[in-house]
Amino acid sequence: MHSAGKGSEPVVDVVDLAARLIACDSVTPAQGAVFDLLGAALVPLGFVVDRFVTGEAPDGPVENLLAVRGSGGRHVAFAGHVDVVAPGPGWASPPFAPEQRHGLLFGRGAVDMKGAVAAFVAAAERVPADAGTISLIITGDEEGPAVYGTRALIDRMAARGIAPDLCLVGEPTSQQRLGDMVKIGRRGSVNIWIDVPGRQGHVAYPHLADNPIPKLVAALGAIEAVTLDTGNAWFQPSNIEVTDITVGNPATNVIPGHAAARLSIRFNDEHRGDELVERITAIVHAHAPEARVEGRISGEAFLTQPGAFSALVSAAIERHTGLTPELSTTGGTSDARFLSRLCPTVEFGLLNATMHKVDEAVAVDDLRALVAIYADIALAGLATQPTR
Amino acid sequence: MHSAGKGSEPVVDVVDLAARLIACDSVTPAQGAVFDLLGAALVPLGFVVDRFVTGEAPDGPVENLLAVRGSGGRHVAFAGHVDVVAPGPGWASPPFAPEQRHGLLFGRGAVDMKGAVAAFVAAAERVPADAGTISLIITGDEEGPAVYGTRALIDRMAARGIAPDLCLVGEPTSQQRLGDMVKIGRRGSVNIWIDVPGRQGHVAYPHLADNPIPKLVAALGAIEAVTLDTGNAWFQPSNIEVTDITVGNPATNVIPGHAAARLSIRFNDEHRGDELVERITAIVHAHAPEARVEGRISGEAFLTQPGAFSALVSAAIERHTGLTPELSTTGGTSDARFLSRLCPTVEFGLLNATMHKVDEAVAVDDLRALVAIYADIALAGLATQPTR
Ligand SMILES: [Zn+2]
Ligand SMILES: [Zn+2]
Repeated sequence: MHSAGKGSEPVVDVVDLAARLIACDSVTPAQGAVFDLLGAALVPLGFVVDRFVTGEAPDGPVENLLAVRGSGGRHVAFAGHVDVVAPGPGWASPPFAPEQRHGLLFGRGAVDMKGAVAAFVAAAERVPADAGTISLIITGDEEGPAVYGTRALIDRMAARGIAPDLCLVGEPTSQQRLGDMVKIGRRGSVNIWIDVPGRQGHVAYPHLADNPIPKLVAALGAIEAVTLDTGNAWFQPSNIEVTDITVGNPATNVIPGHAAARLSIRFNDEHRGDELVERITAIVHAHAPEARVEGRISGEAFLTQPGAFSALVSAAIERHTGLTPELSTTGGTSDARFLSRLCPTVEFGLLNATMHKVDEAVAVDDLRALVAIYADIALAGLATQPTR
Repeated sequence: MHSAGKGSEPVVDVVDLAARLIACDSVTPAQGAVFDLLGAALVPLGFVVDRFVTGEAPDGPVENLLAVRGSGGRHVAFAGHVDVVAPGPGWASPPFAPEQRHGLLFGRGAVDMKGAVAAFVAAAERVPADAGTISLIITGDEEGPAVYGTRALIDRMAARGIAPDLCLVGEPTSQQRLGDMVKIGRRGSVNIWIDVPGRQGHVAYPHLADNPIPKLVAALGAIEAVTLDTGNAWFQPSNIEVTDITVGNPATNVIPGHAAARLSIRFNDEHRGDELVERITAIVHAHAPEARVEGRISGEAFLTQPGAFSALVSAAIERHTGLTPELSTTGGTSDARFLSRLCPTVEFGLLNATMHKVDEAVAVDDLRALVAIYADIALAGLATQPTR
């Protein structure tokens, strides 16, 4: 068995490993081949690889991988996913036949996030085995329902008594140049469905009908008037968007029997999803007592307060890119919302410009720089005692 | 030529004529056979029958019939239509094979309004030819677009210098018993389409998008707050209904680029359709300056002030039914909205309970009573000098 350590020549080529991971068609949920490949790359580096399949239809089964090297000292975890979103048509080269052109490696998953997974494997090789514990928390379902993905990995770790001290999530956080942004938190997200019943009738006889639209309009007007907060040091203001209204009445002379709307709320760490659903429900019921209101929380807000961990991540990035990353909480949700309950969690990865798009690509130079940055983060994380 | 007159025995049997008219399948627009039959019934009574086809697709061509008997004295017109709405499935007996059961004549058009057309033909026979001028203004398109129907008949009358003094429209106005309701006016009707453009985007980045829904909701809220009027002696209050809202955005995380709504306004004689469209447009533009607002006026409101004409109609009804009819302006629009521009116009006809429904039927006794009432109205109308 090959065991990497200080002074030995690295054998993992990040570009080659990224290309081989991309070549495994792993449209969410990922299964089999891509995990075989990742496991085969980790075992020679001294990792103990634990693969398991969990969950039932419709949100499962899902395959996950937990790889741990070492058992003593501090524990730095790297978290990510090997599933990808469907490539869609229109690619210049086939999405699962990775190809280098003009210094870019093209293929679905190049930045989101097989490139980052490959970089962490390569980085792990550069960290001495006796520096502490390193783990990879890799799910096959981040892009899908994510019910049996990272949550199942967290349960697995708890069952096995594995508790990381720091977690780095490798999502593509960079905006214009590698290293310009790190995410230290994410807003929460909740969707709310409002359904106002009425009584259908003819417009000529409104007293025989009960139009649900005025009630819905009044409720939505009151919701639009709400200011959830004005933002804070680390978060932009929470925001409510009405994303759809449905009546579906084709007849000009008919009062409809039914009106529905859908809201999307992105909220900061001053709120919890269930409280927001309650608050919206109360507003709706003030205008339409018989309305049905249903919320689905995609994720709670979280914040890893800037401190030793974000500082060491920033320092590693500055060393290899010359950029001071912005500490941000913008964008959608990520699996960091689950991992942040375990330990301080920061997200840093490749450029997100082409993620989920046609001709997704990563700069080969960025891949190599990311290996160096991840290795520095792991080394520094294992060496220091960060504030939680 | 047979010429009916005072003292001669009537030859038109209203039930037989109604049945033969029903037997002509004349789903809107009516053409040919039903007009042949009607013309053949009128010519022996001394009517000069003028049939013409006018208009082009999509709202034409339409066949109409203008029958006039006499040219001197006062002029009482009877207006109606021989087209019918599609029968649909589920009839106990075929809709165009009229059948009597338990004193009822079943068939599409029995009450709306071939029964009334037959009753007016039979009534005309009972009115002496020298009592004045009688006309039948019969369209083949009242149930359809009605673009080349009664409007074309009015143009034809103007071109020929024919101007009735009174007009009775034979729509089925009776509610529970023949004679319980006469319509002396109708509310106007306008539909308005509101289209608010926006800029589509992701809910996580609302500053890059422009959600049209809040603007539409604000506009609709302001529209809901409008009281057009509180009604008056002859009309119920005008009423605005929002009948539809369409966004059509299936994605929970997307801010839509477009939101639309549709209004239906039923208005009384205190308003005109174009003024209402202007007023709604101004409200919408106050909240969404870039919105497109489009109105379509189905009909203006009209009122034939109660006076000599409604009094003689009521008297005729009381004489034959014992009921004092309610003078009403309720319900949808009718072709009376066009005819009321020519002369005092009142609507009276059969029971409307089965109109446009399966198993449409008229009581044979009602048909015979209607002949007597129509004859009395014609005689009294030709004899008196009503207030306009
Ligand atoms: Zn991702
Ligand atoms: Zn009719």
